[in-house]
Amino acid sequence: MLTINYANCLSSRVGPHGLDPARLDPAGDLAQGIADLTQRLAQTRGTGWERWRELARGQMRQDHIPAIKALVDELRPRASNLIVLGIGGSALGNIALHSALRSPMWNLQSDEERGGPRLFVLDNVDPTSVAAVLDICKKNGGYERTIFNVVSKSGETAETASQFMIIRDLLKRELGEGYAKNIVAITDPEKGTMRQICDAEGFVTLPVPEGVGGRFSVLSPVGLFSAAMCGIDINALLDGADAMDKRCSSEKLNENPAAMLAALLVELGTRKGKTNHVLMPYANSLYLLADWFRQLWAESLGKQFDRDGKEVFTGFTPIKALGTTDQHSQVQLYREGPNDKVIGLIEVESFGPYKGEIPTGLGIENLKYLEGSNLVELMNAEKRATEFALNESQRPNFTIKFPKVDAHHVGEFINLWQIATAYAGLMLNIDAYNQPAVELGKRATFGLMGRAGFEEFKGKVDEGLAETGYLV
Amino acid sequence: MLTINYANCLSSRVGPHGLDPARLDPAGDLAQGIADLTQRLAQTRGTGWERWRELARGQMRQDHIPAIKALVDELRPRASNLIVLGIGGSALGNIALHSALRSPMWNLQSDEERGGPRLFVLDNVDPTSVAAVLDICKKNGGYERTIFNVVSKSGETAETASQFMIIRDLLKRELGEGYAKNIVAITDPEKGTMRQICDAEGFVTLPVPEGVGGRFSVLSPVGLFSAAMCGIDINALLDGADAMDKRCSSEKLNENPAAMLAALLVELGTRKGKTNHVLMPYANSLYLLADWFRQLWAESLGKQFDRDGKEVFTGFTPIKALGTTDQHSQVQLYREGPNDKVIGLIEVESFGPYKGEIPTGLGIENLKYLEGSNLVELMNAEKRATEFALNESQRPNFTIKFPKVDAHHVGEFINLWQIATAYAGLMLNIDAYNQPAVELGKRATFGLMGRAGFEEFKGKVDEGLAETGYLV
Repeated sequence: MLTINYANCLSSRVGPHGLDPARLDPAGDLAQGIADLTQRLAQTRGTGWERWRELARGQMRQDHIPAIKALVDELRPRASNLIVLGIGGSALGNIALHSALRSPMWNLQSDEERGGPRLFVLDNVDPTSVAAVLDICKKNGGYERTIFNVVSKSGETAETASQFMIIRDLLKRELGEGYAKNIVAITDPEKGTMRQICDAEGFVTLPVPEGVGGRFSVLSPVGLFSAAMCGIDINALLDGADAMDKRCSSEKLNENPAAMLAALLVELGTRKGKTNHVLMPYANSLYLLADWFRQLWAESLGKQFDRDGKEVFTGFTPIKALGTTDQHSQVQLYREGPNDKVIGLIEVESFGPYKGEIPTGLGIENLKYLEGSNLVELMNAEKRATEFALNESQRPNFTIKFPKVDAHHVGEFINLWQIATAYAGLMLNIDAYNQPAVELGKRATFGLMGRAGFEEFKGKVDEGLAETGYLV
Repeated sequence: MLTINYANCLSSRVGPHGLDPARLDPAGDLAQGIADLTQRLAQTRGTGWERWRELARGQMRQDHIPAIKALVDELRPRASNLIVLGIGGSALGNIALHSALRSPMWNLQSDEERGGPRLFVLDNVDPTSVAAVLDICKKNGGYERTIFNVVSKSGETAETASQFMIIRDLLKRELGEGYAKNIVAITDPEKGTMRQICDAEGFVTLPVPEGVGGRFSVLSPVGLFSAAMCGIDINALLDGADAMDKRCSSEKLNENPAAMLAALLVELGTRKGKTNHVLMPYANSLYLLADWFRQLWAESLGKQFDRDGKEVFTGFTPIKALGTTDQHSQVQLYREGPNDKVIGLIEVESFGPYKGEIPTGLGIENLKYLEGSNLVELMNAEKRATEFALNESQRPNFTIKFPKVDAHHVGEFINLWQIATAYAGLMLNIDAYNQPAVELGKRATFGLMGRAGFEEFKGKVDEGLAETGYLV
């Protein structure tokens, strides 16, 4: 079970930069307000944009898991490579699950060791990367043993659509009539451009469930299909997510991890000016989960207007960091720069069989203290030392502890932050489920790319960005 | 030649959140002050902690390049794998150069395609990663064809020292007496713990030059050796760095890219509250250069005290982002969240032979606009669209343009930021070359790991972090 230790967010540890412990009193305002929000969330769960809350249990789970498993059983024997075509919420979860739960050397392992396909996630339209990935797949298994997993609810996301158009054409040329067998689409089950293409061309599909937004979709087929293809235990993942959900249904602030996390970060953010929220795992495997968190936290809470239409420019800047590595890069700033951050440390108790025993016998006095210890001890000593040093500089921080990194605990972690985001949205009185500011860039891109109906945007962009000579 | 377009940092484009163009007047205060700083930097270059400024020219270059080339010529034929052991400034530059200038699929390519060793940089003590990398090397070429490049000026960095102790022991067991031939140390040429070990065990060494700090060492053997092993043109890199240095020797603000970059970021940071500095390349290859930048900018400028001993808590939080990917993750926040950022976009004009032509013939009306275009056009349209959208929200931003990504331009980029950091340090009146806040964490780690002489720190940490029950 994950735990959050938040002692270092309190004024008793970090002085005026922390919260008064009385603020978290179970009988106080904040705790009462949270109890109300918990009731509200219980009423809205499974409806509207909060359907994601039901992904780990009930009917959606019963629908998705067997469909994914059947498809995986069919595809795994003929897949040396799996290429995910998606961006944002259609890619970040896949990357996070894979890096958390598979070997960091997965793609370099032999077929026998992996027991599943190499995984490549093309979450950008960078031509060099696209070409390099296609080349590697061609030479290792070939296109006939490469499954392309296009993930797009609408099919109109320009990046994914253009990658898909390139891939479809390539496969038709390379594989002939049967090319459709190498494409799996995860898309809207009923409507939209990708649905239309899938129906016309006969691709196998899995659903992006109605009412599940991109950044809340990792526990749907969007994230689960590629995970299962690579042998991740998706049932354990959902079990962990559901276990966290149960804990986060408590109306008691001090027994509800997501509510507490939201309360700490929103209070520190809005009352103490700590608007930068760092997530710093002391484990390489969890580093890319911080990228998934970045989207969730930034897009959900970064809003110009609140629900009453008042201009608020609210939100927090999520920052990913890595312990111990970033102690040698960012901690100088975190301790001595502007005191504008809350630093979320992640500690892992047990790393698995290899502990990195540090041998004796080097015979150098200054390094004797390391002999007979191991890398796990060192990692955790450094984490503790950093925590101490942050406190000394009055920098609020907290620790999320993983007993170990496995599917169950990663599932807990995902729902911890998803549910915390729902609380934070309510606390800030904003809509956590829209992303209105992304629209203008999309329209401007359409205009610049010559899409009919968007001509005015090209003119506006060209005028707005006309050369002024401010160039060096 | 790199160019910086800073029109979008000005009030003419982003209203009150930008700088008044008059502030950059060539005859104004700021430009005069910059001219003075340029003179100061001309006097201090090559002395004290500004010896890094001479790495790309003169005697240091003449010493380093032939030594590196000779060693590379000897080692490349017997190296299938190169593992760098280093952290912070002893790793970030290596990673950045490799990802910028080698294939993203380098380690998956065949020996013939690469023409150089696979590269692994172990910049953390994560035991899972260490075990996975060693296992891959053992199975692909074996330890006898694996070169270990330990990078540590003193040899006392706990992370690098413990990795080194593990590796040394492993190699002695696996390779017997000749094990030293598989270790290359980059360390202090005269003194320190690693020097002592190298002298005793007969490792080949290259120097960390005197007066070159970790985060300014990428153009020394620290960064150049692994780059040259992987076939990067290190002369072109230094030529580019030197070409940028020449441009940055101009006393005219509007002809000096580093001075202009520093002026914009410091002025926006200190006068307009834009203390978060995002670097967002529209090219996957440049993404990890943003990690190198993060250390440089954070550690150099994040300081509690200025040179006069006044408490200032100054500095800026560097943030890495990736275009187009982070348009689907961070741009919502960048446009609607707190207006506390300057966003540095990086544009690449030419991506190389593969442009990702988007084929015709899908026959879907809504995607017709993409047909016949290519991924390079799409990438750059999205960049331009984002720039436009940021301006519409009055978010200051600038664009660094690469004609293409090659060693020369990457060299320019590195010196652009290194020299900008020197200017920013002077403008903020702080010491850009120390990192006093890192010391406490190091001592606390020593204490927790039982190093003699640091016992008091263990007691302090245990007392400071005693359990309080603030746990959920």
